[in-house]
Amino acid sequence: MTDLILRQDNDHIARLVLNSPANHNALSNEMIAALTAAFEEIAADEAIRVIVLAAQGRAFCAGHDLRQMQAMRDGPDGGRAAFADLFDRCARMMQVIPTLPQPVIAEVQGVATAAGCQLVASCDMAVASESARFGVNGVNIGLFCSTPMVALTRAIPSKAAFEMLTTGDFIDAARAQQLGLINRIATPGTLTDATMGMAATIAAKLPAAIRLGKHAFHDQLRLGLSDAYATSGAAMCRNILLPDTTEGMAAFLEKRPPTWA
Amino acid sequence: MTDLILRQDNDHIARLVLNSPANHNALSNEMIAALTAAFEEIAADEAIRVIVLAAQGRAFCAGHDLRQMQAMRDGPDGGRAAFADLFDRCARMMQVIPTLPQPVIAEVQGVATAAGCQLVASCDMAVASESARFGVNGVNIGLFCSTPMVALTRAIPSKAAFEMLTTGDFIDAARAQQLGLINRIATPGTLTDATMGMAATIAAKLPAAIRLGKHAFHDQLRLGLSDAYATSGAAMCRNILLPDTTEGMAAFLEKRPPTWA
Amino acid sequence: MTDLILRQDNDHIARLVLNSPANHNALSNEMIAALTAAFEEIAADEAIRVIVLAAQGRAFCAGHDLRQMQAMRDGPDGGRAAFADLFDRCARMMQVIPTLPQPVIAEVQGVATAAGCQLVASCDMAVASESARFGVNGVNIGLFCSTPMVALTRAIPSKAAFEMLTTGDFIDAARAQQLGLINRIATPGTLTDATMGMAATIAAKLPAAIRLGKHAFHDQLRLGLSDAYATSGAAMCRNILLPDTTEGMAAFLEKRPPTWA
Repeated sequence: MTDLILRQDNDHIARLVLNSPANHNALSNEMIAALTAAFEEIAADEAIRVIVLAAQGRAFCAGHDLRQMQAMRDGPDGGRAAFADLFDRCARMMQVIPTLPQPVIAEVQGVATAAGCQLVASCDMAVASESARFGVNGVNIGLFCSTPMVALTRAIPSKAAFEMLTTGDFIDAARAQQLGLINRIATPGTLTDATMGMAATIAAKLPAAIRLGKHAFHDQLRLGLSDAYATSGAAMCRNILLPDTTEGMAAFLEKRPPTWA
Repeated sequence: MTDLILRQDNDHIARLVLNSPANHNALSNEMIAALTAAFEEIAADEAIRVIVLAAQGRAFCAGHDLRQMQAMRDGPDGGRAAFADLFDRCARMMQVIPTLPQPVIAEVQGVATAAGCQLVASCDMAVASESARFGVNGVNIGLFCSTPMVALTRAIPSKAAFEMLTTGDFIDAARAQQLGLINRIATPGTLTDATMGMAATIAAKLPAAIRLGKHAFHDQLRLGLSDAYATSGAAMCRNILLPDTTEGMAAFLEKRPPTWA
Repeated sequence: MTDLILRQDNDHIARLVLNSPANHNALSNEMIAALTAAFEEIAADEAIRVIVLAAQGRAFCAGHDLRQMQAMRDGPDGGRAAFADLFDRCARMMQVIPTLPQPVIAEVQGVATAAGCQLVASCDMAVASESARFGVNGVNIGLFCSTPMVALTRAIPSKAAFEMLTTGDFIDAARAQQLGLINRIATPGTLTDATMGMAATIAAKLPAAIRLGKHAFHDQLRLGLSDAYATSGAAMCRNILLPDTTEGMAAFLEKRPPTWA
C-alpha cells in the first residue's frame, strides 16, 4: 500500500507531498484523514519550522472524490449525514492550517480545482508554476463551491471570486498572483527551488518569533482596529521578552549576526 | 410616457436597460422606484437565471438627481425628512441586489459617478467598455459620497477608495479592473457581447446551484472563519442532495453531459 | 535642541516633516510623543484641511528605536511594563490618524520599515518615490512585526502581508502600489510636488464635507452592509443640509463655480 502523503524533513522544513496522482490527489476520506494527521503530527514537532505542501502528478489537487461521494448516497437518508460529516471534516482540516505553529506554503505545480483551490487559498502562502491553473468549478456539475468560497473570498477581491464561482472559469498563475491567491510564480523547472528557497528563508528566522507571529496574524485578522492592536501588542510584549530576541536586537545594534539558543 | 427601465428577456437572461439618457440615467425618485420594482419582479421570476443591468446613452448613471434633490429643500424642515427617506430608499435598492436569487452583472458603457458608481460596485459583477470612467465625485460640489462609499470600500482596497472619495478624481476601466471594481473590459463595439456571453455562461449552469451559491456567497462574506464554514457547509449539503446535482455528478463520472430537469 | 518634527503650514495644508535623519527618524519615545502632540494640535486647528507626513534624510522611518528599547530591559521586570507602555503609546498614535478630521497623506521618500511601514499603512493615503522600499522586517532580529501587521493587513491582501512579515523581504514602490499600500509613485525629483498637488486638490474641496466624509469612511469600514448604510446615510443627511452644500449643488446646476463661506 502506498502512502497517500509523503513526508520528507530537511533543515527544519517538512515537505508534504500529496501522493495520489491517479485520482488527481482528490480529497477523499482517506486523504483528508491523512492530511489532518500529518498536520497534527507536525504541529507537535518542535524541530519543524516551515511546512511545504506539494503534490505528485499533473494536478495539484482536483477537490473532493466524486466517486466516493456518489457512493455515500446509498444510505437511508440519501447521504445527508455522510455529506454533512464529510464537509465538516474537510472544513476542519482547512481550518487547522492557520492554527499550525508553522507557516504553510503551497507549491502548486498543476491544476487546483474546487476544494483543491480551497487548499491553496487556505495555506498561509502559495508559490505556483506558470502552468498552474485555478478554478472553483463545481458549478459545472451542479455543485456550487460554497465551502471553497470561504477561503477564496478571504484571499482575493469579492467580484473576482464571484466570477470564478459562477462561471466555473479557470484563472492562470499570473492572474492568481495579481488577485492575491498566490505569492510567487516560477517556471516548472524552478518551482521546487523557489518554494524551498522561501521556506529556507523563513526557517532561518527565530522559530519562536515566527510561531508567535503566525498565531497573532490570524488572531487579529478580522478584529476591529482597537481589539486588533490589543491582541497584537500583547504578542509584541511576549516576543520582545524572549532571551533570543534580546540577543537578536543586541546583535543588530552591534552589527554582528545573532547567536540564538 | 417612456419607460424608465426597459426589460428584455432572452434565454433565461433579463436585460434591464436604464432608459433616461437625457438626465444621464440619474437615480431620481422614479428611477429608484422603477429599479426596485424591476428587481422585485425578477426575484419572483423562476425563468430568469441572470440579470444584466445596462444603460442607454453616453452615461451609465450619473448618480442622484440633483435638481430633484434641490427641490426637496422647500419643506419646513429644509428637506431633512425627504433626504433621509431618499437615501434610505436608495440604500435599500442597492442592498436588494445581493439578496436577489439571480447574479447581477453591470454592463458599463459610459461614465458611472457617485450613486452610479455605487450601483456598479453593488452588482455581483461588472463588465465595462474601455472608455468607461468611474468616480465618486460628490465632494466636488460639497457632498461627500458617503453612501456610495459603503459599496466601493467593499469592492476595492481602502487607500484607493479614500483617494477617489476625497480627490473626486475619476479612474479608467483598466484601473477599475486592477482594483477589483469591474471583472472584464471590452471595446465599445463588443461590450454587449462580452456581458451577454458571461450571462449566458452562468445561465447554462444548474439554476438551483447558482441561486443557492449566490445566497451562500453573501451570507458568509463578513463572518469569522468558523461561522462562515458552518453556513457554507450547510449550503453544500442542501446543494448536493438536489436530484439534479446527483445527475450532474453522475454525468461527470460517466464523461457525458448532464440531463437536468 | 532641534525639533523632532518640523511643521510648515501653507494654503490650509500642514506639512509635518520627521526630522531625525541621524537615527532614520526612529519612533523613539520622544518621536511618538512629538507626533501625537502634532496630530492633536492639528486636530483642533480649523484652518488645516490636509496633513502631509514627510521625512528628512535617506529613510522615511526605520521603526522603533532599538537602542532605547534595549535600555528598557534594565528594570526589575526586564522591561515588561515599559514595553507594554511603549507599544500602547505607539498603537494609540497610529490609531489617532483615522480619527483626525483631516486626511493624512504619507510622502515616502525612502525606506519605511517595521513601525515605519505601519505609519505609511496607517495614513489615509500615501505617495512614494520610485526608490522607496517597504518592509516589516523585525523578524530578521527575532521580533515579529505584530503591531505593524495590524495596519498592513488592513491595507494589502492577506497572503502578501504574510510573506512580508515572515520573510522580512522588502517590496519596491511598484509592488506597494499594486498591493494597495500606496496610492501613487513619483520620481524622487517630483515626489513633493506630487504629494502637495494631491493635498491641494483635497484642500480645495468643501472642508466640512471632507471632515464629515473621512469620519464616515472609517466608521463604516468594518460594519455589516446594513449597519454601514445606516451610519453613512446619516452622514449624507448631515452633509446635504449644510448651507455650503446647498450652494455647491445650486452652482453645479447653474454651471458656475460655488461660492463657499
